[in-house]
This record gives sequence, C-alpha cells and structure tokens, in this order.
Amino acid sequence: MIAGDLERLIQLLARLPGLGPRSARRAVLHLMKKREALMLPLAEAMVRAADSVAVCATCGNLDTRDPCGICADPQRDPKLLCVVEDVADLWALERSGAFKGRYQVLGGTLSAIDGRGPEQLNLGGLVARVTGKAGDAAGEGAQVEEVILALSATVDGQTTTHYISERLADTGVKVSRLAHGVPVGGELDYLDDGTLTAALKARRPA
Amino acid sequence: MIAGDLERLIQLLARLPGLGPRSARRAVLHLMKKREALMLPLAEAMVRAADSVAVCATCGNLDTRDPCGICADPQRDPKLLCVVEDVADLWALERSGAFKGRYQVLGGTLSAIDGRGPEQLNLGGLVARVTGKAGDAAGEGAQVEEVILALSATVDGQTTTHYISERLADTGVKVSRLAHGVPVGGELDYLDDGTLTAALKARRPA
Repeated sequence: MIAGDLERLIQLLARLPGLGPRSARRAVLHLMKKREALMLPLAEAMVRAADSVAVCATCGNLDTRDPCGICADPQRDPKLLCVVEDVADLWALERSGAFKGRYQVLGGTLSAIDGRGPEQLNLGGLVARVTGKAGDAAGEGAQVEEVILALSATVDGQTTTHYISERLADTGVKVSRLAHGVPVGGELDYLDDGTLTAALKARRPA
Repeated sequence: MIAGDLERLIQLLARLPGLGPRSARRAVLHLMKKREALMLPLAEAMVRAADSVAVCATCGNLDTRDPCGICADPQRDPKLLCVVEDVADLWALERSGAFKGRYQVLGGTLSAIDGRGPEQLNLGGLVARVTGKAGDAAGEGAQVEEVILALSATVDGQTTTHYISERLADTGVKVSRLAHGVPVGGELDYLDDGTLTAALKARRPA
C-alpha cells in the first residue's frame, strides 16, 4: 500500500552502496519530512553534478574541469605520480594534505576472483604518462621521476602493486609503495600479526 | 580539492539517516558511475514524490491521494483503528498483511528525555476519530470499536501506550496492545529476560 512514487524512490535509494531496503525506507520518510530543506536541494544537486562533473581525461579524477584542478595546478609537482585504486582514495590522500604531486586513478585492482585483468585497468594511461607518450593536456611531458603505488594492502592490491612495478621496471622511474606499520593512534594489542611483523621489520631509529 | 558540486551533493546525502560522510562519499562516486541509470532517475523520483505525495489529513499516512488509499478503501474495516508511531511502522504492518483496519499515525511517542508531551503528538485527531467528532473525510463516523496500540515496546512506547489507553478509557471503545513474546524464528537463548518473562506469563495451550 506504499504509493507508487514513494515505492520507486525507495527502490532507487536502496541501490546506493550502504543503503538496504530498510534504511532506504527510513531515508525516504526523512526526505518527505524535509521536502524543501533537503529533498528538493538534493535532487537539484544531483542534476547539477550529473551535468557539470566529468572524469579527467588525464588522471581519472572527477571534477567540473578537464584537465581536473589537480592536473591543471602548476603548484603540484609533476615529478611525483601517485597511483590510486579509485577517486575515493584520491580524496582520502587529498584530505591528509600530505601529497603535493599528481594522481593516476586505476579504476580498480587486478582481481582473479572478479576476473579483472590488466586490460580492465587504466594501465596504458599510466605507462604513457610515465614514458612521456601521453597527450600533453597536463603539460607534464616525460617529467615523472617517481611513481608512488598507493593501493590497498589487500591481496588484490598487493598483486596490482607488484604487477605495476614490474611493468614500470624498465622505464627508469623510481617506483615506491606506501609503508606498512602501526596506524597512528592504533593500539598494538588490536593489530594483526602481519601488520606487527611489517612494523617490526621496518623499524626506525627512535 | 573535491569539486564544489560534488562536495555539496556529499553534504546533502550525509544528512540522510544511516549515511555518514564516508558512506555519502561512496554513494556519490557510485552515482557518478551510474549517471543515466541511477543518478538522474533518482533526482527525478525525488522531485516527483516531493510534488505528488502528501500527508493524509485523516490518518497521517503518506500517499498521492488525500484521504489516503487506506482511509479511502471501503474494504478496510472502519471498526478497527491501529495507532502507530510513524509511517514506517504503518508500512511494516502493511507488509505483514495481517491488519485490515485503518491507521492513526502519531508522529512519535511521548518522551521525557526529548521533551515530547501529549501536545506534540497527533492525539487530538485520534480522540476525535474515536469519539466520532472528526471531519468525516474517510466516512467513518463514530464506528471505531477497537483501538490497537501498536507502539514500540520501549520505555517511551509503553508510556505512550499507557497514556493513550487512559485517555480513551471513558470513550467506551476497546483498547488493546500488541502481544509480547518470542519472535517467530527466534531462539530462546538469545532473548532478554523481559521478553522471556512476558512470553511465559502469556503462555497458551499448545
């Protein structure tokens, strides 16, 4: 007996990651209570973003400009190229404020289980940028000196890290990956053996 | 460095119940990947629902019609009136298919902590319907014979159940509440003492 218009809204909302049918129903009731303050602005923001935001042809970031704000920013170091799995990871690194180079978004990792091979990832683009054979939208030429592989420390992420570093081996650029270790604020007691082992191996002078 | 249009969409989505900033970011990336298949239809469904769906003046349900489909349905028993906290509870009862009467949506429960007293709830409407003094949109007159209080078995819900049954005491209608007991499919071992005690007290011939 749910009105058709509400039912359709619930079904569409339930397709968002993190929302099931029950939370989609709750969200719709919340939206109906805040029609002017939330529901219509949200709809408008979606239409606007769908219209204005596009994938950066250089790095794969999402922005209202192409090349994106990061690729077009002359303040960002063109010698450093950070490879991330998806845009969420790029955003996470940007929030940290610790990286001042540019990015390459792969769009996933290699995965035997999900059947994703090298051809499904944006690897050609990466190699072309590193060897300076990419279209020169970001005006970077063959300036890349270091590729930082910032992929997840999962099996798939590590496989991908290994694959890419092999693939870039004879380009002459330095290839690095993120350090493993104790998360800042983390308690030793809660860490898994693999992390502890890695942190111990990579110990540094105090 | 997130584009302003995306940032705004993330902020609005994060205001939905069940979505925090992180899941809102994931949802936005998902939407951007499914622009035509999900993002624009979702925006359109929101605009449409905001326009077409209204609160039923009789019972508080949400529908494209007023009186709503339930209030207007001559097949529904006007002698049975089920009081629920909000529309989500009404939907839950409708999914069960076990109730064929009509509803009254309170819009909350009494709550000392949240400072909700009787005047914040739609109690006047309930009393008016029960005593037959309501506007006769649903054509029900003073036909209500039983009020079923289907409120949560929380402290606030039980306080509200008690308050309403007192309030209706001298109207002559029968006032009932949902049974407490073992949830169907539930294992005894996982149940709390209160539920077990209630189920034991209300035991029935096998």
